[in-house]
Amino acid sequence: MKLGFVQNHPVFGNVRENVDRTLEMLAGQEAGLIVLPELFSTGYQFAGREEALELAEPIPDGPTARRLIDLARSQKTALVAGLAERDGKTVYNSALVVGAQGYIGKYRKAHLFDAENDVFQPGDLPLPVFDVGPCRVGVMICFDWRFPETARTLALNGADVIAHPSNLVLPHCPQAMITRCLENRVYAVTADRVGTEARVPGESLKFVGQSQVVDPDGQVLYRASVDREETKIVEIDVARARNKKINPRNDLLAGRRLDLYRLN
Amino acid sequence: MKLGFVQNHPVFGNVRENVDRTLEMLAGQEAGLIVLPELFSTGYQFAGREEALELAEPIPDGPTARRLIDLARSQKTALVAGLAERDGKTVYNSALVVGAQGYIGKYRKAHLFDAENDVFQPGDLPLPVFDVGPCRVGVMICFDWRFPETARTLALNGADVIAHPSNLVLPHCPQAMITRCLENRVYAVTADRVGTEARVPGESLKFVGQSQVVDPDGQVLYRASVDREETKIVEIDVARARNKKINPRNDLLAGRRLDLYRLN
Repeated sequence: MKLGFVQNHPVFGNVRENVDRTLEMLAGQEAGLIVLPELFSTGYQFAGREEALELAEPIPDGPTARRLIDLARSQKTALVAGLAERDGKTVYNSALVVGAQGYIGKYRKAHLFDAENDVFQPGDLPLPVFDVGPCRVGVMICFDWRFPETARTLALNGADVIAHPSNLVLPHCPQAMITRCLENRVYAVTADRVGTEARVPGESLKFVGQSQVVDPDGQVLYRASVDREETKIVEIDVARARNKKINPRNDLLAGRRLDLYRLN
Repeated sequence: MKLGFVQNHPVFGNVRENVDRTLEMLAGQEAGLIVLPELFSTGYQFAGREEALELAEPIPDGPTARRLIDLARSQKTALVAGLAERDGKTVYNSALVVGAQGYIGKYRKAHLFDAENDVFQPGDLPLPVFDVGPCRVGVMICFDWRFPETARTLALNGADVIAHPSNLVLPHCPQAMITRCLENRVYAVTADRVGTEARVPGESLKFVGQSQVVDPDGQVLYRASVDREETKIVEIDVARARNKKINPRNDLLAGRRLDLYRLN
């Protein structure tokens, strides 16, 4: 199957223009699954909860979600896209999952990073794995990577591919996602953004780009630049992620020593 | 405290000479903790269980364990050392833990790699954390790294430092140990060996060296060569591993979402 990402450069608050630009970057791209960055339509650095509430939209009934659902239908391409989600008076840092047949589901970021705790409500939905047709996709958002339990839960729930919308500002994640693939034998697509936001005094955030696709053997199939917008699609073999053996004696899920772990 | 490793090059089966050489490499080294490679005294590639049984020794009463206990006492240095352990008719791929006051405990490798399953019995002891004086040390052996539950269990049990005797033949581990440190905010010492063994027809094993010390922020404090024997000691600040916060809002252990994980 074909698997890819958009690495974009949103302008904070210009939702309609940011979505326009991303749809342009998706135009004509055919793939089984394409992943967009975290908060791809709004930008990242909200001044507070009220501002986020104004820019957030319902999932799946908000205008940005509808536009993505329409595009997925017309291009027959599944999408995972990070969005600020409004649910009544609550805002979540969420991801929409949509397939060629329409809306599939959503995920709300479980591990909020730093000042995100002042803006968003922590996720209250299970770590999801959705069948989007060509593969089973597990979703986690940005800082969720830091907790190995997230990717592990997705792999145990049957994910072939981890879709990982991100807005990375720290340097470690691209390399660490290799470990996530090696330990779970999954593909992972990290869709990051580029550019800088400095809306909060003293807090200039530079996003590190380097969106990437990694395979179940930890090979980086493609890694994007640190500073340019880009759409990239690569070919993968989903069957490789369904075989958890790295040799005839070692299965990375069945070989776990649950009798010895203490994880609470 | 001072923390280090020996990267050695054992000759298969020459236990006495291998231990002599390692004691030479330790002579005069003063440190809070020094880690030796997996199976440092015997070499790695046993033809089968019978050969391993002949070369293995009891822990702590075998001659190699006694020599290490004497050295730890005289140099006032804690040691973690990988040994083939004989217990009756059973052989484990074990690690001895010894402090300046004498024998402390042992660990038996939980996740056996590939042909090791034909030689060793899987570990049946808890994943251990021992107070060796200057730090609390958790022990895992080589391929245990591939399962994130191992290092996580050690961190949750209070390890400041993960001592990781290894005989690495695959390329990924040195980078992946950076992830283990980032996700658990611990120090990790991987003590590897160098050289090649080709005792089994068609199975030439080249060990990759690159023994290293990594800090809780994922910085590689030192990484050894791929092909030379070496003893290295670095200075660390154990207190850094006891603070699991990466910013005022994110504690890497307390911030786990146990309500959302499914790890069985």
